[in-house]
This record gives sequence, C-alpha cells and structure tokens, in this order.
Amino acid sequence: MSTLHPLALAATARLTARFARIATIQEAAGMLSWDAAAVMPAGGASARGDQLAVLAGLAHGLLVAPEVEDDLAQAEAAGTDPDPWSAANLHLMRLAHTRASALPATLVEAQARANSACEKIWREARRTADFPLVAPALAEVLALVREQAGALAARLGLSPYDALMDGYQRGIGAADVAPVFAAYESFLGDALPRAEALQAVRPAPLRLAGPFPVPVQEALCRRLSVLAGLEPEHSRLDRSAHPFCGGTPTDVRITTRYDEQDFAQALLGVLHETGHALYERGLPVAWARQPVGAAAGMAAHESQSLIIEMQACRSDAFLGWLGGELHLLFGGDPAPYAGDNLARLWRRVRRGFIRVDADEMTYPAHVILRFRLEQAMIAGDLAVADLPGAWNEGLRALLGIVPPDDASGCLQDIHWYDGAFGYFPSYTLGAMAAAQLMAAARREVAGLHAALGRGDLAPLIGWLRTKVHAMGSLLGFNDLLRHATGKSLDPLDFEAHLTGRYL
Amino acid sequence: MSTLHPLALAATARLTARFARIATIQEAAGMLSWDAAAVMPAGGASARGDQLAVLAGLAHGLLVAPEVEDDLAQAEAAGTDPDPWSAANLHLMRLAHTRASALPATLVEAQARANSACEKIWREARRTADFPLVAPALAEVLALVREQAGALAARLGLSPYDALMDGYQRGIGAADVAPVFAAYESFLGDALPRAEALQAVRPAPLRLAGPFPVPVQEALCRRLSVLAGLEPEHSRLDRSAHPFCGGTPTDVRITTRYDEQDFAQALLGVLHETGHALYERGLPVAWARQPVGAAAGMAAHESQSLIIEMQACRSDAFLGWLGGELHLLFGGDPAPYAGDNLARLWRRVRRGFIRVDADEMTYPAHVILRFRLEQAMIAGDLAVADLPGAWNEGLRALLGIVPPDDASGCLQDIHWYDGAFGYFPSYTLGAMAAAQLMAAARREVAGLHAALGRGDLAPLIGWLRTKVHAMGSLLGFNDLLRHATGKSLDPLDFEAHLTGRYL
Repeated sequence: MSTLHPLALAATARLTARFARIATIQEAAGMLSWDAAAVMPAGGASARGDQLAVLAGLAHGLLVAPEVEDDLAQAEAAGTDPDPWSAANLHLMRLAHTRASALPATLVEAQARANSACEKIWREARRTADFPLVAPALAEVLALVREQAGALAARLGLSPYDALMDGYQRGIGAADVAPVFAAYESFLGDALPRAEALQAVRPAPLRLAGPFPVPVQEALCRRLSVLAGLEPEHSRLDRSAHPFCGGTPTDVRITTRYDEQDFAQALLGVLHETGHALYERGLPVAWARQPVGAAAGMAAHESQSLIIEMQACRSDAFLGWLGGELHLLFGGDPAPYAGDNLARLWRRVRRGFIRVDADEMTYPAHVILRFRLEQAMIAGDLAVADLPGAWNEGLRALLGIVPPDDASGCLQDIHWYDGAFGYFPSYTLGAMAAAQLMAAARREVAGLHAALGRGDLAPLIGWLRTKVHAMGSLLGFNDLLRHATGKSLDPLDFEAHLTGRYL
Repeated sequence: MSTLHPLALAATARLTARFARIATIQEAAGMLSWDAAAVMPAGGASARGDQLAVLAGLAHGLLVAPEVEDDLAQAEAAGTDPDPWSAANLHLMRLAHTRASALPATLVEAQARANSACEKIWREARRTADFPLVAPALAEVLALVREQAGALAARLGLSPYDALMDGYQRGIGAADVAPVFAAYESFLGDALPRAEALQAVRPAPLRLAGPFPVPVQEALCRRLSVLAGLEPEHSRLDRSAHPFCGGTPTDVRITTRYDEQDFAQALLGVLHETGHALYERGLPVAWARQPVGAAAGMAAHESQSLIIEMQACRSDAFLGWLGGELHLLFGGDPAPYAGDNLARLWRRVRRGFIRVDADEMTYPAHVILRFRLEQAMIAGDLAVADLPGAWNEGLRALLGIVPPDDASGCLQDIHWYDGAFGYFPSYTLGAMAAAQLMAAARREVAGLHAALGRGDLAPLIGWLRTKVHAMGSLLGFNDLLRHATGKSLDPLDFEAHLTGRYL
C-alpha cells in the first residue's frame, strides 16, 4: 500500500491519465505513419501531413500544459515512491515535460520548416552528388539543432550533444561511447585485414539461383516471423520502400521490400524487424501507454532487432536449419543452401562506402565516423562547408577507402538533412549490446544452441522477454545491460563475437 | 471585398481554423476506422477503440469549447455574409456547435456505453432469433435516444424525430417524407403484383457459371471503378466484412467482399461505393475541411451511390456493354452475358424479409416500415416489447409477407441496437433522389444514353460534379434537388423509373 500523500496520489493519477492520452494520440499518429508508408495512395500525402501535424500538436499541447508542471511538482514533493516503476515513471514524465517545454514554439516550428525544406533539397543533391546544393539548407538545419541542443542542455544538465543523444537513447552519453568506439577502431585495424585474408582463401560462395517468386518470399517471411513468436493476431507484414517496424504493442506493423532475384534482403530484413516487433509485444502491459512502459530507447531497440537478425539467425546453427527449409521451398541444387554456404554468402566482410550495405564488422566504422563528425558539428568545430573533406578523410582513416563522390559519402544518409543529430551511435550501441546479450543468453539459457539448430528461437526470446522486453523503460541503457548481463556496455563481447565468426 | 466588421472577420478566421482542426482530427479517425475494418489484426481492436475514443473526445472538446460560442456570436452579429458559401458555413458551424453542446456529457457517455452493450447482445440475439434477450438493452438505448432527441429538439426547434433525422440529412423532415412514402406505398400495391406477373412469364435468367477467381474479380472491380472516374492515386479498393466507403476526399478508401461463385455482389457493390467515393472526390476543394465543404448528408450520399449502381450501371445500355466485357474476361458460353440476361438476373423483383437483399422496387417498403416504427418509438407510442408484433404486422401490410422469426424481422439491422434512429429514411430518399437526378441528367446531358452504351460514365459524372458534388453542403436536401433538377423531392421520377424498367 502506498504511503504517499493523497494530494501526491491525485496529482500522479492526473499525470497518468494525461500521459495515457498522449500515448494514445501518438499511437494514432504511428498507425497513420505506417499507412502513409505502406498503403496510402500518393494523392493522400498532403492531407496526411496535416493529420500528423495536428496530432503532434495535440500531443505536444498536452505535454507542455501548465497543469503538468503543477502536478509534477506536487507528485515529486511527496518524495521518491518506494515502487521503482512508479518512481521511474514519474521521473520519465518529468523528463518528457522538460524536453518538450525547453524549446520555444518558434524554434520547434523553425526546425520543422528547415528540416522539411532541407530534406527535399537533399534528395536532389544526393541524386546529382552535389553537396554545395544542399550545404546552405544543412547549415540552417545545423544552426537550429545547435540552438535546440543548447536549450535542452541548459535544462537537462547535459552537454549539448548528450542532450540530443539522450532523446534517442537515455542512459548513455558521448563520454561512455567515445572510448568504446576508440577501442573498436583499434580492434578493427587488426581484425579487418585478417578477416579479409581468411575470406580470400576460402571457397567463393555459391550463388542462390532465382527467380524467387515474391508471393513465395512473402509467405516465407511471414512464416519465419510467426515461428520467431510474432502472433498474426497482433501483427501485420506489408511492403514499403524502406523496411520498418511501426504500429502499437498490440498491433505491430512490420514492412519489407522484395527483390525477385534475391530473397535474402527481404528474409533477413523481416527477421530484423521481427526483433523490433517482439520487443514491442513484450513491453510490460501493466505500464502500457506510460513512459516507463515504453521501449528503453533506440539503441535498446536496435539490440533486439540485431540479436535476432545478426546473432541468432546468422549463427551457424540457425543457418544450417534455415538452409534445409529454404531448399525445401525453392528446390533446385541443394549445395547453395548448405548452412556453410549461406554463411559465406550472408556473412561477407567488405570495405564499402555505404553504411546500410555494410557487414557487421565494418558497420561500426561508418557509425564511428558519423559520431565524430556530428559531435564536431554540434560543438561548432566543423563547418558544413568542411564536411565532405572531413568525411572522406575520416573514412580513409577508418576503412582505408575514399568515396568517389559525395553521394557515396556525406550525402548518403537522410539523418542530418532531416535534423537528426545524436541518433547514429544507436546502431552500433545496439549491435554491441546484442552481442553482449547473446553471450549472456548462451551462458544462462540451457539448450540455446540446440534450439537455434532446429530453428527454434523461443528459448532466446523467452530470456529476452524477461531480461529486456518486460523491463520497459525502467532502466537506462547501461543499467539495462547491467540488469541483463551483469555489466554495462562492454565492446569485448562484440569483438569476441566477430573474432569467433570471422577469425 | 467583404464589408464585414474586422472583429467578425477575426472571429470567422478563428472558427475556420478550429473547424479545419476538427475535420483533420475526424479525417485521422476516419482512416483508423478504415484500418480497423480493412486491415487491422484482431488483437489491435482494444487499442484502436481507445484511439478512436480519444480522437472523438478531442474533436468534441474543440467543438463545444466556450470560445466557439463567443466567436459564433461575434461573427453572427455582423449580419449575414453576402457570400452564400460563407454564410452557409457559419450557419453549419452554429448547427454543429448547437448539436454538440445540446447534450450533457453524462448523456453522451451513457449512450456510448448503452449502445456498445446493446450491440454486443444484439449479435447474440440475432444469431439465436431471441428478441427478448436484447429487449431490455434496446429499451435502455431507446430511453437514452429519446432523451437525446428531446434535448436536441429543444435547441433546434424541431420535433424530436426530426432532430435525429437532421443529424443524418439536413433539409428534410418527417412531414416531407411521410406523404412521399405514403404515395410510394400506394404505387407499390399496384406495381409490385404487375411486375411479378410480367417477370413470371419472361424466360428465367441463365445462371453465370463460376467459379470466378477472386483476383480476377478484384482486378475487374478496380478497372471499373477507375473507368468510372475514381483515380488510383487518390483511392484504394480493399476487402472488408461489410462494404463501405471511407477515408478522406483526397484518399478515398472503398471496400467490398468477394464470393468466388458470384461476382455480381462485389462488382455491383464496388460500383455503389464508387458512387460514394466520386462524391467525396468532387467536393469543393476551396471549402475542404469546412462544414459547407462536406457532403450534404446521408441521403444525398446514397443518391450518388445509387445513381451509379442502380440508375446507370443497371441500365439496359450499360448492361449491354458490361456483358461483353464480362464475357471477354470470364469466357465460356456468351448467352448468360447478354445484356438482357444480366438485366433479368440483376433486376429481379422479389418480396423478401431482408432489407439489404431487397430489389429496388421492394426496398422502400422495408424503409417505410422502419420509418414508421422508429417514429412511433421516439414518440413513445410503441414500446420495445411490442416491436416484433408491430414489425410483422407492418411488413404484412406492405409486402404481404411475415418473417418466420425475429432474426429475419426486427433483429436484422444493427441500426437501432447501436442507437441510430432517424437514419433509415436516407436509403429511400437517396434512391428517389437518384431517379430524379437521372431523369434530369437524361434531359440535360446530350449523348448520355449512348455513353452508357459504351461503358462511359464520364458525361453523367461530369453533370453530377457540377450539380451535386461541387455544391458541398451549401444546400439542404430539398434545396439541392431543386438546384439540380428544378424541383424538390418528387417520388414520381422514381415511380416512372420503376415503371419503365419493370412494367
């Protein structure tokens, strides 16, 4: 029984109702965003933009209303709730309110306009590899993001860059990430040439001969996501230009795209999105629509997609099982479907210019590059005009290659051009956390390896549900890892994983 | 240049922005309702219910806010705007505000609960043909609807029944409808036996031999809706348990269901929904998201679906063309695809118990029955317990048949059990208006008949766009008919249509 003052309880009840309302509006917006990407006819785009803007405005209005400050103050005055979930929920309400009210409406509107304008120019600039075309718009976006970061930093007691990062992944900052990335850079300098050398002397992988009819691929993807534990009565699988996982915890919508000549992209993509979806499905129902009941952040989310896609489903054990299934389905010569051939096909190390095409060993180099550049840009140490040079120099230092043009360089990702600074680390933090979680699961879950060898992800998912999904946002990133694995982020597990798989 | 006082203009500008916001929220809700019916996994139902309730609450809150009364008063004080669209828009804002604020929140909530509870029981009662099971819940629904009607009537200066009817179709009331329906009853008493006799001596229609693969039916439906003028970049065709037209004017979503043995249901259903969709597409863009820019009401909407489905597409000319197309598609014996055979198949008169299965001649009898019964229930002259008896007696008087049980009688329609009283007349008002509009179009549009004979609906749609679609809600039902056809609702056009087609 709570011993809090009745006034604090009343304030908390009002806050709980308000945040449930905000989350419900955001659910509606999430569904409409899914619709826009997956099924909306093009002619609906303008009206949809208005709908999403109105919903965002309504949610924002509820979050920054003056009564929120009063209720938060009243609830906080009662002291820390002895129930850690209630205490964390109140803390996260305060954080959300602080973040939302730190920014003047004029800045929020200026950012929305600048981001949208820049993103449009960026599409053209990327198509024509013309960085100077988008540089003025990016400078405007950056100036506003720096203003945003400054305003947030002042209110949150964080550095400007950490204040941005905190919006994507709570509980870890640049000071935690920098040494981890530095260590990885050093590991990579040694591991990558060795992995390439080993790869060069192995037999070349046999190609999987298509075509693979799209409806068959779609049925396969659906079957594997169901096998992984995603219930059809609570999910959909559709198509979109860019695969994603959206929707709500009881109605998760994942998407992919299909290439008739190559089913791997859709299949592995769906397994990735299934990892995201299972996280949403496993969030604590008792705290649904409350801040503490949501996923712990973007890096935590990425850890859940990558542990399924990269750790479990590209393991030797799982690929052995999967190859048999695929050959049953597509027929033809069985040799390319052997597990070790699939491993050679789908676990190929290659120094490339494009982040989204990168293998798991070189991917972090792309992220480290962006992490360093965006930190410098936010700090005011790197001007937009100098970005292409810094990019090319950075990639040369990390991977020893230089992109032929800016389309393959600093123009390749939408993020910065859409105002998203501080997001990139999440990808690699997620990959490292996935390895760390998998190492812990292998220690703790009896029969995990054997289960993967018969395509059974249930033991792994069961462990993740308890250790990660059911924790919601109770813990920040490093605390969540400590809870699940006994230690904060440790890149050695990721390095050990890569060493085992590639060296 | 407007000569209104600046204060009135400022108030009008605020109202315009507010009603655009309300409409945008309702668009979002409309899309989510489409999603729930067409694509949502079952497990999402509960969350979706919450999302729709929150959006409805937000829209309602914006509509009844005290500032609305102030702004309306200020805008109205300036006198009637010389621009009829602006004047009508202000009038419709007032009407929407009055309707929404006439009902105490406690009544709105009690109705939502009672309707939802009754609807659930009704599903079971219909399944088991057990009217007493649902009678108490229906009595509760009716008591609340009577309270609602009384509250609306007091504010609107209408009778309680008209106050309900006005919510579905502005500009026509029971006093207009009753004589029209009485005249039709008298017409039917003579026409129906004659139509049956003529039908009996004609050759029996040849059956269309299936199966008709669902993907082919779907492609056919899509092609016909596009041919009718529904642009793929502004619409979708999907499947749902009950066909409907939803979405927004720039993103219209129509649905149907498919039966592999019978393509007529899907095909004619899609043509019907296409009529609704074209109305939405043709609404005045300059008044988008304003009350005067919306469709003129449910009867007006039904007139647009029925003029396409019943008047145009079941005409001899169109069926002749359509039969050729269908035979090209499905092959086999050409005889059943002859236009006159399709006419015999799809224009068959039959006295039946079920409204939704009724032909166009007997359909109004079903509506007349419900119109009279619901008027009596709202007036307090018919108790729920006496409904089955009154139903059976009424149907006997109108069509000379008595349903074998209440599932085929007073339990067949969801409307009353979900709290919808005053809606039923819209079906037949729409059918009559469709005939009246078609008669006018035949007079005014050169080459209309020849166009139908080559499957070309464009001349008809073009005329409807000018006469009906582009008028939005500028005019009430009877005024809209006067504008389009030179006279208010006149059942003689409908009778002449039936006489021409069946006698």
